[in-house]
Parts: sequence; C-alpha cells; structure tokens
Amino acid sequence: MFKKILIANRGEIARRIIRTCKRLNIQTVAVYSEADKDSLFVREADEAYEIGKPPVALSYLNIDKIIETAKKANAEAIHPGYGLLSENPNFAKRCEEEGIVFIGPKPDVIAAMGSKLEARIKMKEAGVPIIEGVNVVIESVEEALKEAEQIGYPLMLKASSGGGGIGMQRIHNQEELAKAFEGNKKRAQSYFGDGTMYIEKYIENPHHVEVQILADAHGNVVPLFERECSIQRRNQKVIEEAPSPTISDATREKMLEAAVRAAKYIGYTNAGTFEFLVDDKENFYFLEMNTRLQVEHPVTEEITGIDLVEQQIRIAQGLPLEIARESLKINGHAIEARIYAEDPVTFYPSPGVIGSLQLPEGEGVRNDCAVESGAQVTPFYDPMIGKLIVHGKTREEAVKRLVEALKLYKVEGIKTNIPMLLKIASHEQFIKGNITTSFVERYYLPEVQVTK
Amino acid sequence: MFKKILIANRGEIARRIIRTCKRLNIQTVAVYSEADKDSLFVREADEAYEIGKPPVALSYLNIDKIIETAKKANAEAIHPGYGLLSENPNFAKRCEEEGIVFIGPKPDVIAAMGSKLEARIKMKEAGVPIIEGVNVVIESVEEALKEAEQIGYPLMLKASSGGGGIGMQRIHNQEELAKAFEGNKKRAQSYFGDGTMYIEKYIENPHHVEVQILADAHGNVVPLFERECSIQRRNQKVIEEAPSPTISDATREKMLEAAVRAAKYIGYTNAGTFEFLVDDKENFYFLEMNTRLQVEHPVTEEITGIDLVEQQIRIAQGLPLEIARESLKINGHAIEARIYAEDPVTFYPSPGVIGSLQLPEGEGVRNDCAVESGAQVTPFYDPMIGKLIVHGKTREEAVKRLVEALKLYKVEGIKTNIPMLLKIASHEQFIKGNITTSFVERYYLPEVQVTK
Repeated sequence: MFKKILIANRGEIARRIIRTCKRLNIQTVAVYSEADKDSLFVREADEAYEIGKPPVALSYLNIDKIIETAKKANAEAIHPGYGLLSENPNFAKRCEEEGIVFIGPKPDVIAAMGSKLEARIKMKEAGVPIIEGVNVVIESVEEALKEAEQIGYPLMLKASSGGGGIGMQRIHNQEELAKAFEGNKKRAQSYFGDGTMYIEKYIENPHHVEVQILADAHGNVVPLFERECSIQRRNQKVIEEAPSPTISDATREKMLEAAVRAAKYIGYTNAGTFEFLVDDKENFYFLEMNTRLQVEHPVTEEITGIDLVEQQIRIAQGLPLEIARESLKINGHAIEARIYAEDPVTFYPSPGVIGSLQLPEGEGVRNDCAVESGAQVTPFYDPMIGKLIVHGKTREEAVKRLVEALKLYKVEGIKTNIPMLLKIASHEQFIKGNITTSFVERYYLPEVQVTK
Repeated sequence: MFKKILIANRGEIARRIIRTCKRLNIQTVAVYSEADKDSLFVREADEAYEIGKPPVALSYLNIDKIIETAKKANAEAIHPGYGLLSENPNFAKRCEEEGIVFIGPKPDVIAAMGSKLEARIKMKEAGVPIIEGVNVVIESVEEALKEAEQIGYPLMLKASSGGGGIGMQRIHNQEELAKAFEGNKKRAQSYFGDGTMYIEKYIENPHHVEVQILADAHGNVVPLFERECSIQRRNQKVIEEAPSPTISDATREKMLEAAVRAAKYIGYTNAGTFEFLVDDKENFYFLEMNTRLQVEHPVTEEITGIDLVEQQIRIAQGLPLEIARESLKINGHAIEARIYAEDPVTFYPSPGVIGSLQLPEGEGVRNDCAVESGAQVTPFYDPMIGKLIVHGKTREEAVKRLVEALKLYKVEGIKTNIPMLLKIASHEQFIKGNITTSFVERYYLPEVQVTK
C-alpha cells in the first residue's frame, strides 16, 4: 500500500479522500490556497502546504507547484478528486514522468474521453449507442447548416472539450444555428482552449442515467449499477440517486453491459462513469465519460457498501479488483442532495460567513460536508458546501428521509438552496419518480418565480 | 397507522423516535422537564408539553401527568423509549386502561421479565439455558450461605428487580457473602422498591451477547441477529457491536433459536432483547430480557437495514411482521460507542455547557446525538450525550472507521469519555476481537490509572 498520498483538491472531496486514507493507514498531504487556510480538510490532513492564492489558476491548477510539493513531502501518489486537475491529461502525464502515481486512468485515455467528439467515435467503435449526429469537426457555419439538414432539428450544438453546459446550446432551426455557431465556438475556445464544435440530434425530455464502473490494470471491469441524475439546474446536477427509478431491469442490464464493453475497449483503469441520455422509450445514448470520481459517488457507495476511493487507490497500485460482479446486489435506495451556498431562485452564489451549521443525523443519513460553524464561503470556488446523502430500504423511505433531513439541515448566515431541494424532494412528481432533465424548469421554477 | 404518538422520554432516543414518526407521517408529542426545555427533541416534536421539574420522579416518571398530556394532545399511542417508564408494567397497564396504546409488550409480560428471578424460571421452562443457581428467593444470610454451598464459589449475588449493576455483587467466599447480603438487599429495596435476592454461579470472564428479536401479535417471531456488548464500565455498556466477533455461526444459530423459543413461550410482542452470558467454550446462559428498545439498537439497524422503531410501531398497531427470517442476512459490521459527559478515568459525570460540538461525518458514520453546540448537560439525567455508530464491510473496516470518527468528534467545554473510547478502540486486544466484560478493568484502567 502507498504510505503517503497528496490530495490535489479542496473542500468536501479532500475530506472524503482523507477519511479513506486514514482508515487504510495512508498518510495524507493537503495542498491549499491562501483562501482555504482555515478549512477542515487542511486541519484533517497529516500535512498541509499552501500553494498559492485564489483563483484556481494560481494554486489548485498550478501543476509545477503541486508536483514540487508532492516531492518535498515524499508523497508516492496524487489523488485529484473531481474538477480542477482531475481530467487534465497533461497533469496525469507529468505525474507519470516525475515518478508519482496519478490516481486515475492513463493520460491518453483521459485525453481521448476529454474530447467529446473523440469519445463519441470510440463509443461507436465499441458498439455503444450514441446520439445521432456527425462524427466530424464542424468548422464553419456553412458546414454546420449542411450537416444539420441531415440530422434534422431540433439539435444540440456542442463543444468537444465542453463541460458544465458551456458551449452547448439547443438549436431549433437554421436561423438559430447560424446565429449561435460562432459565439459558442468562441466561448468554447476561451473556456477550454479548444473551439472544436460538433452537432447531435436533440433528445426530447431525456433522463440522465450514468453507470459507475471499476476497472483494474488486469482487464477486470465491474459495473456498480447506475445513478439517476436528472434533477439539474443550469445543466448541473443537484439531486442524484441510485438505483434509477426510471429504467427497467432489462435496460439496466443493457446499460451495464455497454459500460463494461466500453471500458474494456478503451483500456480504462480507475473508477469511471459512463453518462447516458435515456429517452421515454428507454433507448439510451452515450453522452460522455468522466474519468474520475463523481460528486455523486456516495449514492453508489450506499447501495453497494463499496468505498470507491479505496478502490481507486487499490487500482492505482496495480492490485486486482476483489469484487465479483455476481456477488453484487443493490441494497436499498440512496439519494444525494447537493447543498449549495446560492440563492434558491436565481441560482447565484451566496458567499459569506456561516454563523452556525447543524447537520441532520440518525439512521440512513450521511453527511459529506466541506464546512463547519464559523467557516467562510469565499466567492473563489464552486459554492457547494456539502452533500446530504440518505439511504433507505426503498425509494419511498429514502425520499421521506431526505425531506426530514433537509428540514433539520441548518445553515445560518448565508443563503442556501435547501428551500429548493425541499420543494423538489416534496414534489408529487419527484415522489413518483417522474424525473427528467427538465424537472427544475418545468415544476420548480414556475412555482418559485411566481411566488417570489 | 397511528396519527399521533407521545414520546415519554428525552434526549437522543426521543429524537430517534421523532425521526421515524416523521418519515411515517405520524405526528409527535414531546413531554419534557423544565431542565430540558431548550433541548433538540422538544423543538423537533410537532407538539411539546412541560410536565414538571427534575428529578425524573417529578416529571418523566409522573404517570398521571403523562397520561393526562397524551389525552389532552389526542395521542393514540405512547412510545416509552428506554429507561424511565419503558419497563414499568404499571405504566403499560395504565395506558391500556386509558385506551392509549403502549408501544411495548403486554403488562404481565413486562412484569414477568422485570423480575429477574421469575424470568430465570420462565426461561428454564422454555428450555433456554440458564446460569446454575437457585430459583427461589433468598430470604436471609443463613439461607444464602446454605444455597451457596450447593452452587460453589465464586458466585453472583443479585437483586431480582436489579438493573445497571445495582444490588449485584461478585462473591468469592462465605465471609464475603455474609458481609454483602444485607447491604445489597437494602440497596435493592431502596433503588427498586424490592429487596428480593437470588444467587447464581459466577461465570468466569464472560462475553455479553444479546439477541434482538421482533415479535408481532400474530405469533411471528423473527430474530435480527445478535449484538456483542462486552465492553462495559461499572456494569454499563459503552461499546457494542453487531455481529458478535466472539461466537461461531453454530453458536449464533443456537442463540437465535433459543431467543425465538423464549419469545414464543412468554407470548412476547414488540422488539425485545434476550441477554446472554457466553463463556470461553461458547456455552451461553440467559442473563435477562429487556422488553423495550435498547440503547444499542442502531448496530442491528445498520447490519439489517431494518428500522426497529418503525417495527415497534407496526407491531403495536397489530400489523403482522413483513420480514421473512430467510431473507435476512448480516450486512457488514457495525459498532456503537456511547459518548458520555464524564471523566474518562473516574467515570464521574461531568455536567456543564457544551461550547461547540462537531460530529464526525462521511461514509459509514451515523450520529444519534442528544445535544447541539451551546447545550447544557445537566446533572439530572444519564450523562450520555450521543451515540456514534459506524458501519463497514468488515469488522476491521468498522473498527478503523470508529477510531477515525472518534478523533474527529469534538465536544468543547465538558469532559467526555472520548479519550477512553479511543484507547479501547485502538487497543490491540479490541482490534483482535478479544473482548470480555473484564476488558475495561483488565486493559484500560491499569493503563490510565498509572499514567493519569
């Protein structure tokens, strides 16, 4: 086993990784920006080094500084968490060159999946269903209009290096496409340093369902079931659950098979997630692959009892998976709600000082929290302050637990999205499991924007 | 389902019951003493009524006042929690007479099991192994000495109505027996209003293992495996776990069978616990039965996924159990540590104001806590401020989680037993599962009393 791991991340996910390392008797090294110096993860790590100031470019994305710190602290491996450098192939490559184990897949696999267009092509080769579209780079408006004729409207204009909804737009007709193309291309260029665009058919009212897999360096791939992540605001997930309440066992089986096949085809190693859009006939289409731990990984942990961070570490050390697919079964139902420091109607971040924080407790309640009473939520980072995860024997039990736990979640001094989460979790359509990616727009926003 | 339940208890167990009621859409009524008016359970209940001042005799044990409150609030049932009135047959009977459902077994069953001596006799009739001893009331020193000759020394002198170790003493020889008899009898009389004494053979270095059962009004009895509760101080449990690491599968099977047989024999209904002493050859002997929820019930919930409070409520409503014994399997390993406001060396209570409270979080960590930052721990009640429950795939994982969670458990302003719990949980013998009821005396106290 590794003796010491550096965690190139912050907040709740840094704490999450520290917990597993402590249990495995692995020393932890935190790196932090000046703005995070009083954070829990800094105190909880065995060692901690300041690596710069906010914004992230000056600290958490400073590859040189992070590598230098890992060497100084004698860390044998780096866990990148999610976001930040976690899907940066250059960082993974640099680790490799410097003799530090990057806890993730090989750089070329990260790069291949990081290009949404390349990932599409690979998935097609692997026999995984992809959304109808074109598998070439769209260079110009003219080309876009020509290809769009083949696919038909509505369609999605997408940035190959995109993420978080940036550079992506739903297009209803020629005029919209003509108007949107250059702007989105420019935005993608400036956000991701890559203006490569492509187009896909638009799937009406889809579900977002993703399959969690584990893949070791010995060719073993085990799927850990799926997560339903359709409840989103601004194209970002806010409530996730496992298993999905919207797919049949037969569809589940097909999706797991597709994910296993895809992981094997690309030579994947690490925990990874295949995201799919599922239409109302339960046809599913590859959306993208995340080559890292997901924010919503706890729901999978709750229904399988498997510690995903531990598995990532084991895989990175070259150990074979000790999990037999046949022995896995779905244990109950788990739901995660992301607690954001943000206005529940406008979704704008709401930084400030948390006066008092009181977390819900008890049976079936897990907190993966970033902050404590008195902590400052700065404007420099993602405003997620914690994740509330509930588990129950049934979805009904889990949903009720979620509602009661949200009522007991007290964050004083800043605005949070708890009122939004409560409204959604108590909504008749959510309770019934009628959830699609347009849930927030359709059921939540009209209500609050009128009553505001 | 009941519409409204009164909770005749306080602290963490009142909160515990409220949580399940909320999930089941049952209204809750709290009753509280003046000293508890700012407590979390009072705020979290739908209604709350002050019923008197401390000590408990003037409030939580005031049957008239509690019944009156239940009627005033239109509560259909009363959950007694543990301790206080939970094993008081008069209270159960009074509820029955007043047309209020007592969430527990019938009064005569409580009474029979409340008399340790009568319980011994019943268990013998049911074919459950009991400790060698006499099944008659020992009236005098002379009689005690005579009976002791038959059994042999060392032996245990016990109070039939005893509990919490009071009136109980280990006796090594005639002189000790002669000296101890009257004092213990008097103490039992004053504590329990009953000076009935009996004697049993002393079991050397035993384990305390107890079987959790559920029994409905339709004759169904389902055992929910066992708990190992050998880590005790002052004859009171401090760390409990499920399953027991000290018994074989064959012994487990025999103990579960004995518990089911016993529950059926006495016509038991409710959640209940059969406590056994287990010797080093895995012979087990009935110790006593608890006709209520146990403090340590969460470890059973963690390994079975069953909400014991929900089951109690269902049974009290006359519903049949919907749990098939064959479908139950032990899911991982769970450990509970009781967090007490007490000196970790002398075990004296340490009341005061909690400055700041920070609970551990994350995967496999559950908190059933009574207090919050700023809460006052008064000298009037049991000094337990919360329970930390951890769950893991294996005992090893659970033990490590316990250690790490205890390190993150921050209670400022008062002394707690956390240092003691940490020492025990980190102790080589505990890690190996070598735990008997003399663990604290043998491994913990010598260390701290020297180094203090």
